[in-house]
Amino acid sequence: MTIVDVGDIPALMRDMGQAAKAAAGKLATASTDAKDTALGAMAVAIRAGAANLKEANAKDMAAGEEKGLSKALLDRLLLTDDRIESMAKGLEDIAALPDPVGSVMAEWDRPNGLRISRVRIPLGVIGVIYESRPNVTADAGGLCLKAGNAVILRGGSESFHSSSAIMACMGTGLAEAGLPEAAIQLVPTRDRAAVGEMLTMTEAIDVIVPRGGKSLIERITAESKIPLFKHLEGICHTYVHAAADPGKACDVVVNSKMRRTGICGTIETLLVDRAVYKDMLPLIIEALRDKGCSIRGDADVQALDGSVEPATDEDWDTEYLDAILSVKVVDGVDEAIAHIAAHSSDHTESILTEDAAAAETFTREVDSAIVMVNASTQFADGGEFGMGAEIGISTGKMHARGPVGVEQLTSFKYVVRGTGQCRP
Amino acid sequence: MTIVDVGDIPALMRDMGQAAKAAAGKLATASTDAKDTALGAMAVAIRAGAANLKEANAKDMAAGEEKGLSKALLDRLLLTDDRIESMAKGLEDIAALPDPVGSVMAEWDRPNGLRISRVRIPLGVIGVIYESRPNVTADAGGLCLKAGNAVILRGGSESFHSSSAIMACMGTGLAEAGLPEAAIQLVPTRDRAAVGEMLTMTEAIDVIVPRGGKSLIERITAESKIPLFKHLEGICHTYVHAAADPGKACDVVVNSKMRRTGICGTIETLLVDRAVYKDMLPLIIEALRDKGCSIRGDADVQALDGSVEPATDEDWDTEYLDAILSVKVVDGVDEAIAHIAAHSSDHTESILTEDAAAAETFTREVDSAIVMVNASTQFADGGEFGMGAEIGISTGKMHARGPVGVEQLTSFKYVVRGTGQCRP
Repeated sequence: MTIVDVGDIPALMRDMGQAAKAAAGKLATASTDAKDTALGAMAVAIRAGAANLKEANAKDMAAGEEKGLSKALLDRLLLTDDRIESMAKGLEDIAALPDPVGSVMAEWDRPNGLRISRVRIPLGVIGVIYESRPNVTADAGGLCLKAGNAVILRGGSESFHSSSAIMACMGTGLAEAGLPEAAIQLVPTRDRAAVGEMLTMTEAIDVIVPRGGKSLIERITAESKIPLFKHLEGICHTYVHAAADPGKACDVVVNSKMRRTGICGTIETLLVDRAVYKDMLPLIIEALRDKGCSIRGDADVQALDGSVEPATDEDWDTEYLDAILSVKVVDGVDEAIAHIAAHSSDHTESILTEDAAAAETFTREVDSAIVMVNASTQFADGGEFGMGAEIGISTGKMHARGPVGVEQLTSFKYVVRGTGQCRP
Repeated sequence: MTIVDVGDIPALMRDMGQAAKAAAGKLATASTDAKDTALGAMAVAIRAGAANLKEANAKDMAAGEEKGLSKALLDRLLLTDDRIESMAKGLEDIAALPDPVGSVMAEWDRPNGLRISRVRIPLGVIGVIYESRPNVTADAGGLCLKAGNAVILRGGSESFHSSSAIMACMGTGLAEAGLPEAAIQLVPTRDRAAVGEMLTMTEAIDVIVPRGGKSLIERITAESKIPLFKHLEGICHTYVHAAADPGKACDVVVNSKMRRTGICGTIETLLVDRAVYKDMLPLIIEALRDKGCSIRGDADVQALDGSVEPATDEDWDTEYLDAILSVKVVDGVDEAIAHIAAHSSDHTESILTEDAAAAETFTREVDSAIVMVNASTQFADGGEFGMGAEIGISTGKMHARGPVGVEQLTSFKYVVRGTGQCRP
């Protein structure tokens, strides 16, 4: 796709929507072979086009530096040889996943001889709105294609040249497999009006997946007339129960917070049971500090360790995405569950305990997309769940929840097979 | 629930929403036993209150007659002893269904020893907006309760006294089981502003199920900020393929149209293959006419039978809900599929054929919620599918599709069980 001068954004988006719908109609019955051939050819095109991709990326990086983007944003924007290889490999991994379309989810017979099957079909047209990471162009495009959906991608303006260059490789793959060009489209303008337009296209787009920071998600949630697969933020909790194994607890808490502090599955608040906090917390705090984490605590935690900063009310509702952890002492599993109900973002929570009854209460009563026992919250990821890849994580309860992989990008229909049955 | 004078509709609805959310929190972990006890007690209260229900219904009937409601509407409104018994029995049937909440939908192990389970949970709060049939108060209330959801019911103004009397029986059942009163609430006013208010309550209501005629559904679709489980209409098709068995075809077509003409699963258009229409259609038309059906046909059908009325372009897009059938001759399965794609409402379509390849093409390519082979479209019903009961039929692709039973009123969460795993 080339960067075109587009004057009339509504007309542009309408045309893209119609093209996507037409493509979706064809993709719904495209063979697994055709889709996998396209994904493989995209990977080849990305590897062969590495020099082009880096050249396009250099333009984005120069503009980003001039614009004064933060170091973190510039890092997300950067395409290295490793990252290019990782995109290509990602597409091959998606090709290797089982095709969800046509698979029978459930099947049963009725007393009158009717055989009823629930069969997976594509959702239709997916819209993906993302920020600086250009690799989403390949990841999201590939995942939607595998599930038989057409996709309209709207990348961040900072990554415009990089995303356009990746899109060209995706187009090459589609053409080689004889699939419709409009199966994957990238909005060919940086004009933000295109996003506003996308969010109203209820006839053409079935679901939108927003990928980015809280302000992007808030804006899209407020404006969208189309259902969203999204999470606003990840205020995740780990609760060290009275019956936690001290060694495991220390390791899992440190991993949950410090493995990567900038992802949605990192914990922001640690809850420690009053029965054990005097014993366990000093070791945990020491281990966290060794990794560079600063601690904010409630009065009990401060009393235990004079160098802990006080946690304010706001801390319990803050997604730091940084090497900071708020720590609170709670009276048993019920208070832990109540704190989580009041402050969690419904993403991922974990209990550390050797007590099966406490684990059962926690997993039953905590109303988050992912509830863990004796495991690091950083496993909250489609790849780690064995889904192959994910387009995002949803904290909503409609349709998709938790990691959104290729199966979650499908719907279903009922096929009823009879031998001439009439209803009495 | 008593009929109260409510001045401030937004405040009333906000309070109902908050009460529903609080009740939903408790229902999510309510035991199967408590829910089934409530459903049983509701059935007892409905049977014991039959005289009261008929008295309340008599007020609605008198007002309806005065208002000049059609005979069909008055029939829907009427509560007879049989219908009251059928409501009570319906609640007992729902009690007898397996509890979906807590059931494990899928479970698998990861190489690192993590065990991942997808576990059903309630959706939260359901809104149901319906027209004249007062029994929806019991059916929808019971089904939502079984799935662990709180529900806000908004019945038709014509059935206000009847629905309120049924609601009182539902309240008795909830109280006997110690479940929250706000688990099932009926909007206690006929003011239509309450509907408008409901449709904006995105914080309190997770999904709305509209039940009624096309104009109600259109209004709700246009206004709602909340996801809907709905179908707009049922323009269903049966296609008599070249390899159809003539005897079965005649029986199934007559049943698909004439068993009940007023339900969404009745066919409105019959497609007949050119290869066989001269042989099969005269018998089918004769059988339909014997049952009182009038036929509108394309030029080929008119040429075959001089007393067939001409079908206009509009006929192919019309839901008659009456003893009228439009009939078209098509050239093979591809033209049948193309006609359905252009005119169907995505509800239910059926092919009649003894040819497995044609059946396979039809079921794969027709993009409707229910696709049948050699069966009457009148089987498009949750009860007939073995789901026990349904709150409606959805033609959407998000979350629920086809008959919406107790399972479709649930969401899920992931439970991840480990032994101290950290992510590398």
